[in-house]
Amino acid sequence: MRLVVIGGVAAGLSAASRARRLDPHAEIIVLERGDSISHAACGLPYYVDGTVPSASQLVTYTADYFRRERGIDVRTGSTVSAIEHHRRAVTLASGERIGYDSLVIATGARPALPVDSVSPNVFTLHTPDDAQRLREFLQTRRPRTGIVIGAGYIGLEAAGALRAHGVRVKVISESAHALGREDSLLTRRIREYLEQFHVDLILGERVNNPSDLQADVVISAGGLRPNTELAAAAGIETGRTGAIRVTERMETNLSRVYAAGDCAETVHLVTGRPIWLPLGTTANKMGRIAGANAAGARERFPGIAGTSIVSICGWAVAVTGLSAAEAKAHGFDAAAVTIQSRDRAAYMRSRPMTVELVGDRRSGRLLGATITGEREVAGRINVVATALAARMTIESLEQLDLAYAPPFSPVWDPLLIAAQQLRKELSS
Amino acid sequence: MRLVVIGGVAAGLSAASRARRLDPHAEIIVLERGDSISHAACGLPYYVDGTVPSASQLVTYTADYFRRERGIDVRTGSTVSAIEHHRRAVTLASGERIGYDSLVIATGARPALPVDSVSPNVFTLHTPDDAQRLREFLQTRRPRTGIVIGAGYIGLEAAGALRAHGVRVKVISESAHALGREDSLLTRRIREYLEQFHVDLILGERVNNPSDLQADVVISAGGLRPNTELAAAAGIETGRTGAIRVTERMETNLSRVYAAGDCAETVHLVTGRPIWLPLGTTANKMGRIAGANAAGARERFPGIAGTSIVSICGWAVAVTGLSAAEAKAHGFDAAAVTIQSRDRAAYMRSRPMTVELVGDRRSGRLLGATITGEREVAGRINVVATALAARMTIESLEQLDLAYAPPFSPVWDPLLIAAQQLRKELSS
Repeated sequence: MRLVVIGGVAAGLSAASRARRLDPHAEIIVLERGDSISHAACGLPYYVDGTVPSASQLVTYTADYFRRERGIDVRTGSTVSAIEHHRRAVTLASGERIGYDSLVIATGARPALPVDSVSPNVFTLHTPDDAQRLREFLQTRRPRTGIVIGAGYIGLEAAGALRAHGVRVKVISESAHALGREDSLLTRRIREYLEQFHVDLILGERVNNPSDLQADVVISAGGLRPNTELAAAAGIETGRTGAIRVTERMETNLSRVYAAGDCAETVHLVTGRPIWLPLGTTANKMGRIAGANAAGARERFPGIAGTSIVSICGWAVAVTGLSAAEAKAHGFDAAAVTIQSRDRAAYMRSRPMTVELVGDRRSGRLLGATITGEREVAGRINVVATALAARMTIESLEQLDLAYAPPFSPVWDPLLIAAQQLRKELSS
Repeated sequence: MRLVVIGGVAAGLSAASRARRLDPHAEIIVLERGDSISHAACGLPYYVDGTVPSASQLVTYTADYFRRERGIDVRTGSTVSAIEHHRRAVTLASGERIGYDSLVIATGARPALPVDSVSPNVFTLHTPDDAQRLREFLQTRRPRTGIVIGAGYIGLEAAGALRAHGVRVKVISESAHALGREDSLLTRRIREYLEQFHVDLILGERVNNPSDLQADVVISAGGLRPNTELAAAAGIETGRTGAIRVTERMETNLSRVYAAGDCAETVHLVTGRPIWLPLGTTANKMGRIAGANAAGARERFPGIAGTSIVSICGWAVAVTGLSAAEAKAHGFDAAAVTIQSRDRAAYMRSRPMTVELVGDRRSGRLLGATITGEREVAGRINVVATALAARMTIESLEQLDLAYAPPFSPVWDPLLIAAQQLRKELSS
């Protein structure tokens, strides 16, 4: 049995590793276009801002490691130019043809806005090379003004990284919302928070060419686009989201051809509809399932709740499920409450925490949450993500036996207070 | 309609407040034996160690506040000497008789080991007065050696508070386990951790009289005992745990007589059996339900997962559900794994985190967890508590869409790594 994996980052390497564990005898080949594998893309802003001193800390695994320790034949610098499924083979740009029994497509995503490489002050944050060039530029040129294109996770983290270098920053986004979430209240709160750090958020404005912008440094961190061309040319279907359509076993419309990671779509656990949300953690999970099934197992990936978190200048913003506006757009009879509380017992040097919960009046079901604060935000959004996966009602959320001690929570956890308020709202 | 509540701390005040909200016209009387209400007992160790500068910060509400803002007639210094249910009345020590339509018993718990009040160096940590006396003693007498009786939450927090005053501490417990959890591995890890701080943990040793101990200061923080005498004398049944038996509506065997908080038992969500676990957060939840039902609503309290967390010298130890030994004792075919991971992405100044997960081989069901670390421990135990409430399988836990960004979690959250390992273990 030979498994070929196209793409050597999160999903591809997760797939290869899982297949290896389930089938010690399979031949597993990973074809990576770039000259290295497995870069920790999510860590790049923290290298730029100096939290991570050396770029080498971001290199988690090498191709050698995979060859030696896992018996996985990782070939960097190997661009696949075609999938010929009728022959069960892929063709490389070099002309070489490699046959497969199972194929995992993990071609990832790329910035939607191409960056003109001739402008020396325009950067992307997609690879460790990008981050190294940018940090060097910041340290040697000491730019005073900066523009970040994109108000998604990477855009806001990039803005924070520029602030750490003393740059006055504007964030410009084509979308009317920050973080790609239809939530006017959250967008307004992010704007107000950023203003304290002299970061301006300009929404609903399109940038056609980053090189035209008037700033000492520009980071293009706009939207991503799934790399589906290779798959599409082989007759593999994409879904409404534009990413590759897969079953819950991560199989495409071609038999024994799987897709996983940023090139593939999945299902939203709350709406039941397809969603494309390119995040490293989801890519790893999809990759594991694709790899297991490519190796003959029968595992399923149930989908995602749309959970994510970002640190903006020391402030954490986390979301999961649907915002109130999104819930209404999906046909729910949505009600929402926003409560202000503290992250610990008031007398324990507590800090503010805000929780917005969204529920459905008809079913009493929990639909989503937005949580902001400085500490213990991730854990609280994860409780909601868990409750969403279990299709919990607001009433059940209100009854949860959450851990309490003064250094960790008020006696009524902010989540429980929000659930109490929302249940009142739902029954009114 | 007149509601009488016996006890003016967590459960009693939650009951009274909820009843008031649901029935603006009811007459609500709270009878509290002590001369103040609503003290934040959980905060006392943090007053002793100096984190909370002033004891007044621990006084959350006054009797006046309840009278004025909530129209609740709180009477401090009012000791109930008998419940005469055939007359629907309680009798006070003063001889006064007060009739009721509904009654909520929230008499709380007391230290199982009585403290001899003539030993000036022996303390309990049950009321703000206790804490003030102890802190003053520590500041003025500067004791060098200390003994804490009890290795439960309060005992370990008290040990930390003594350490903050430079006292060399021994913790002596009659139980063979720390934190009242049958888990030898956890007990060993707590012992090893405490040794770094020169705190000795001595288990399986009974102290009959704290005054006999050779130490400059002694804190009696042994087990609690539910205050059930008043209820028992009125014919109210207690359960196997020794606490008052209640239905899921918090009703006792007497009609319209409810019990809530540290004097009452509840149901363990994993075993389905009665459990008595006197914790403030549970007391508040039980009180709310008792108050709602006493005011004519029909609400239920599903039970608890046994979740708790304690900070030991800056290290958090959190548990929920069953330990492996407890699961076996309850007839589960328990399997457990313990994994070492990090609380954040490795390159983000991460700190170690240990997760033990327990599951049932037969059903694949999640049964419990123990999590230790320095940060973001509460959130992770709460995810498990939520999964327990939803009766989730290990496989579902493994698929959770938890928030990921480098400052908050490794790309594979420690919980997901543990779930992957446990699933392997369950299927082996």
